[in-house]
Amino acid sequence: MKRKIYLKMKTLEEAREIFLEKFISLSTGEEEIDSRQAAGRVTSCPVSARFSSPSFHGAAMDGLAVHALDTFGASDDSPVSLDIAGGQALPINTGHPLPPGKDAVIMIENVLLSDDRSQGVIRAPVYPWQNVRKAGEDIVATELLFPTNHRIAPADIGALLTAGCARVTVRKHPHVTIIPTGTELIDLENNEQEIPTGKTVESNSAVLAAMARQTGARVTVTPLVVDDYDNIIRHLRQAVDSATDLVVINAGSSAGSADYTVRIIEELGEVLVHGVTIMPGKPTILGAVNGKPVVGNPGYPVSAIISFEQFVLPLLAAMQGEEHEAPRRLAARLAKNMPSRAGMEEFRRMITGRIDDHFVTVPLKKGAGAITTLTRANSMLRIPQESEGLSKNSPVQVELLRPQRQIEKTILCTGSHDLTLDLIHDFLKKSHPSFPLCSTHVGSLGGIMAIREGMTHIAGSHLLDPESGDYNRSSIKRYLADQEITLITLVYRRQGFMVRPGNPKKIKDVHDLLRDDVTFINRQAGSGTRVLLDYELAKAGLKADAITGYDNEEYTHMAVAVSVLSGKADAGLGILAAARALKLDFVPVTEERYDLIIPSRFLELPMIRHLLHIINQDDFKKTVEAMGGYSTRETGHFLRI
Amino acid sequence: MKRKIYLKMKTLEEAREIFLEKFISLSTGEEEIDSRQAAGRVTSCPVSARFSSPSFHGAAMDGLAVHALDTFGASDDSPVSLDIAGGQALPINTGHPLPPGKDAVIMIENVLLSDDRSQGVIRAPVYPWQNVRKAGEDIVATELLFPTNHRIAPADIGALLTAGCARVTVRKHPHVTIIPTGTELIDLENNEQEIPTGKTVESNSAVLAAMARQTGARVTVTPLVVDDYDNIIRHLRQAVDSATDLVVINAGSSAGSADYTVRIIEELGEVLVHGVTIMPGKPTILGAVNGKPVVGNPGYPVSAIISFEQFVLPLLAAMQGEEHEAPRRLAARLAKNMPSRAGMEEFRRMITGRIDDHFVTVPLKKGAGAITTLTRANSMLRIPQESEGLSKNSPVQVELLRPQRQIEKTILCTGSHDLTLDLIHDFLKKSHPSFPLCSTHVGSLGGIMAIREGMTHIAGSHLLDPESGDYNRSSIKRYLADQEITLITLVYRRQGFMVRPGNPKKIKDVHDLLRDDVTFINRQAGSGTRVLLDYELAKAGLKADAITGYDNEEYTHMAVAVSVLSGKADAGLGILAAARALKLDFVPVTEERYDLIIPSRFLELPMIRHLLHIINQDDFKKTVEAMGGYSTRETGHFLRI
Repeated sequence: MKRKIYLKMKTLEEAREIFLEKFISLSTGEEEIDSRQAAGRVTSCPVSARFSSPSFHGAAMDGLAVHALDTFGASDDSPVSLDIAGGQALPINTGHPLPPGKDAVIMIENVLLSDDRSQGVIRAPVYPWQNVRKAGEDIVATELLFPTNHRIAPADIGALLTAGCARVTVRKHPHVTIIPTGTELIDLENNEQEIPTGKTVESNSAVLAAMARQTGARVTVTPLVVDDYDNIIRHLRQAVDSATDLVVINAGSSAGSADYTVRIIEELGEVLVHGVTIMPGKPTILGAVNGKPVVGNPGYPVSAIISFEQFVLPLLAAMQGEEHEAPRRLAARLAKNMPSRAGMEEFRRMITGRIDDHFVTVPLKKGAGAITTLTRANSMLRIPQESEGLSKNSPVQVELLRPQRQIEKTILCTGSHDLTLDLIHDFLKKSHPSFPLCSTHVGSLGGIMAIREGMTHIAGSHLLDPESGDYNRSSIKRYLADQEITLITLVYRRQGFMVRPGNPKKIKDVHDLLRDDVTFINRQAGSGTRVLLDYELAKAGLKADAITGYDNEEYTHMAVAVSVLSGKADAGLGILAAARALKLDFVPVTEERYDLIIPSRFLELPMIRHLLHIINQDDFKKTVEAMGGYSTRETGHFLRI
Repeated sequence: MKRKIYLKMKTLEEAREIFLEKFISLSTGEEEIDSRQAAGRVTSCPVSARFSSPSFHGAAMDGLAVHALDTFGASDDSPVSLDIAGGQALPINTGHPLPPGKDAVIMIENVLLSDDRSQGVIRAPVYPWQNVRKAGEDIVATELLFPTNHRIAPADIGALLTAGCARVTVRKHPHVTIIPTGTELIDLENNEQEIPTGKTVESNSAVLAAMARQTGARVTVTPLVVDDYDNIIRHLRQAVDSATDLVVINAGSSAGSADYTVRIIEELGEVLVHGVTIMPGKPTILGAVNGKPVVGNPGYPVSAIISFEQFVLPLLAAMQGEEHEAPRRLAARLAKNMPSRAGMEEFRRMITGRIDDHFVTVPLKKGAGAITTLTRANSMLRIPQESEGLSKNSPVQVELLRPQRQIEKTILCTGSHDLTLDLIHDFLKKSHPSFPLCSTHVGSLGGIMAIREGMTHIAGSHLLDPESGDYNRSSIKRYLADQEITLITLVYRRQGFMVRPGNPKKIKDVHDLLRDDVTFINRQAGSGTRVLLDYELAKAGLKADAITGYDNEEYTHMAVAVSVLSGKADAGLGILAAARALKLDFVPVTEERYDLIIPSRFLELPMIRHLLHIINQDDFKKTVEAMGGYSTRETGHFLRI
């Protein structure tokens, strides 16, 4: 090790400037290719026309080619007869060259032909060059067709070929080498494979490769390298000695004990940046070896992607003669409070949709490990370094990850979760690919509050009114009295205790939850399932605080099921479908109704109309019933409140 | 021939509905592919997670894995010592699985290790599951990862692999067969080839193939087919009998004598639409053979592209489970009158840019043969069928062909044309790829008027003031008195007579233009070159109306050069570079100054600053001088008026 390794963390702007500045003039070279295959490629020098187009004077109409002078004087009163047989006028098709001596074309519609077609009579003259496409009218030989750094579009191929450029000189695609490292990782080979405990599937290299390829880069992914100094240094040396233009070492970039990347880059070259004040993405390393950029990318999937987007993609764009375009922004209202750590610029994945005449944006969870927050998000919110967070209802600017049009068609759904929502999403995408259903889970009461605040189109809810035995109506009357609401029955579903296979703790009913040897996992306050539990406890005259684990809360049925499966808890209340999904046993407790709450003013939105159409389809109902634990006997029932 | 061939022309909407309706349920089938290669592919069925992620409880921090209970009571006053050697606390790295019996991780920063690392002292407790990533926290096995018809993005590949889906089932790419036809066409093989007179390079098939590939389709282009009924019918039969999903026959779709396509589709199948009321694109044929869509695409390059965009691209999108997105629209002011033919919906190619706080849009020429109008345009204006045209200054909605951001950075330049403008464009793209210079040509006075009306950033002008001998100043004072203008010298350039090689008509000076055997080609009124000619005629005491061809006008130096080269005229006044480009002889007449006129308020726009930087570079000046006929002795001189 030659020099100091630890540099002060840089801000995103500083780090990017250092990195791009260093490599901005890096060239990937050029190559001559077939113009027919040039769509998407970028010119490396100006392209000039070799031929003019059209290359000859040609007929712009079907008709007779003539010398215009011969037609002068023709009128209704004194028609002129042209001698076709003798060659004074010659039949000509569109696109064909004018015969010598001719300088105009008479449209065939304006000619009265004799029966033997030897004569043509006209009643109006043509002027010279009328109905003629003149040579060079579109392209003149030697003129500039495309400047340097022009990305060739399909229509441009037409101009290239027409102008005689069968081949065109373009920038070579940059070549990126990705070295995945990590002793704890394994390659996923096929769909049958099991993953040994403690191992994680290596997925970042495929994600980063796909991102790089989308910019036009060629990508080599090396075999997975175990965390070993000599091993990694050998692979990095091989990569920088090859024809590659940029190397990414993925993972091994945090300050943990297995993290060799920074030492290795220091050993072989120079570390430019070590640590960036962004979250996720903090442990990014930017360096240079043999004059080539080497990036130590963080290992968590979201960190890896955000770091790659912020540093590698702009450099790949520059190498291809393009400026990396920052994503489009959109003004939106924030649906929730978002605390944030000052000193770090935070990238939060969001779901944004249009409610009435404004946009609303809902944060997904924070974790850098949660790849699904990136696959579900349609937008990103950057919370600046100096901010300690943003409060609900603040006006914010989100960066769009999807086209704005798609965001405008997004159905926002929040409240309680039910697996049939995923089914609706699938049925919607099948019939109307551009109407996504984006759901977040905040419990039934949370959903009703989101409707009240104009933060969602739909709330899923199963709030039992212990007095009436009805669902949702009393809560809607209490909280949503100032707007007209339509309550639509989605399903009846069974709720019960999810327990490990074989029910080892022999849980039969709600009384068993109070046993000393039973740990419970609860749903969060405000969720319908929590209300149901409290109702069942009260009915049985039992006290909640006698239950071990009553204060441990999860936000979804599936999370409760996972807690039970993993042994963290012995039982949790939830739906049959969740128990089935994880092969847990299920002890039925009751059946409840799950409704969609929709402000009536949204019913005429095209995306909501399609959604309602779907839940009334037999096909949909059959698929719901097949999941088990569901009844669709009242699915689609309407109630205006 | 079985049935009637000629159908009533359809409107665009009618034709598209007939066509899409007929084939909307056409499926291309599905295939299972490696998830790593799935970016851009579209799921053909819902994809569910096979594994949970994480698949085990793992450390979220580097530190000590403990049973949380063992840490309770630790505080500054009563530190707790944990026995590492004995296994009460175990060192653990981020991502590694919790050892059996442990349920929390203490961050390494919060542990005081003994020298031999056998003991660790802590001053605060951890709660159960603190710093632990729980199994299933991100993905729960069996949950829906992606619905049907989901286009897989790079991050989605991460979710697929993480969830154990090494392979994924996607829609097959549609297979498109393109049959180019036309006896007058030839294939361009290489850059050395000459094109025989009367022949035209076949370019549409490569353009349409590239457009189809951009949607994900596979494309086969058959060899060029001559216009022969039996020949074309054989190729079409072969294509529909193959595994292709859609066939395009390009050209041969107008009503000319060599147009067999409609008869052939009628013979083998069914003609759904023959003729659409759009311009370009009118002679489009939409049909079905063996249940497969067959499109007879018009032959002119712009017609071919517009027809393909309107009919084939939406169908290819639908085949891939996506809705074809109409282009974004933008409100702009129209810079010129645009007459249009009622009864036809006209697609006009436009250049749009931002002037002050509004957008301005300038039409390019109309011709369906002018491929360069599509390569130069950044936007499209659709003039409705019922309209007879639009007048200057009308508010219109243009459809964007480029991202709005690029349109906002577009430098609008109009007025007189000079070849150095192309050079500036090239230099700009080299250093700032996102600042395009879009120039249109309306003559010097036209440019000054465009400045006055707020329709351009820059006007190129070389208007001689016969009284003062100066350029442009008196016109600026006359027409642009109400704004501060900066006049920047671009070049001095030679103007002279362009004549055919060897100067067969022996033209020496302006007197020769009056000879009976000399035909002149003029520039349009308002152009600097026209002013110059009139000045020279007046100086010599000659009358313009004695010149044959004085009333024949062209709009650019190059168009004048083409007229001379083609024999349409014997001489035209223009710049040396244009004569050189077409290998014409040049008879010098005078030297003139060519300036850029820029309202001073634009000087601080980033794109204008870069442009001014470029014209002051030595490199740029050298390249200008190398074109011949130019002097850069005052290039970059500033004058505020």
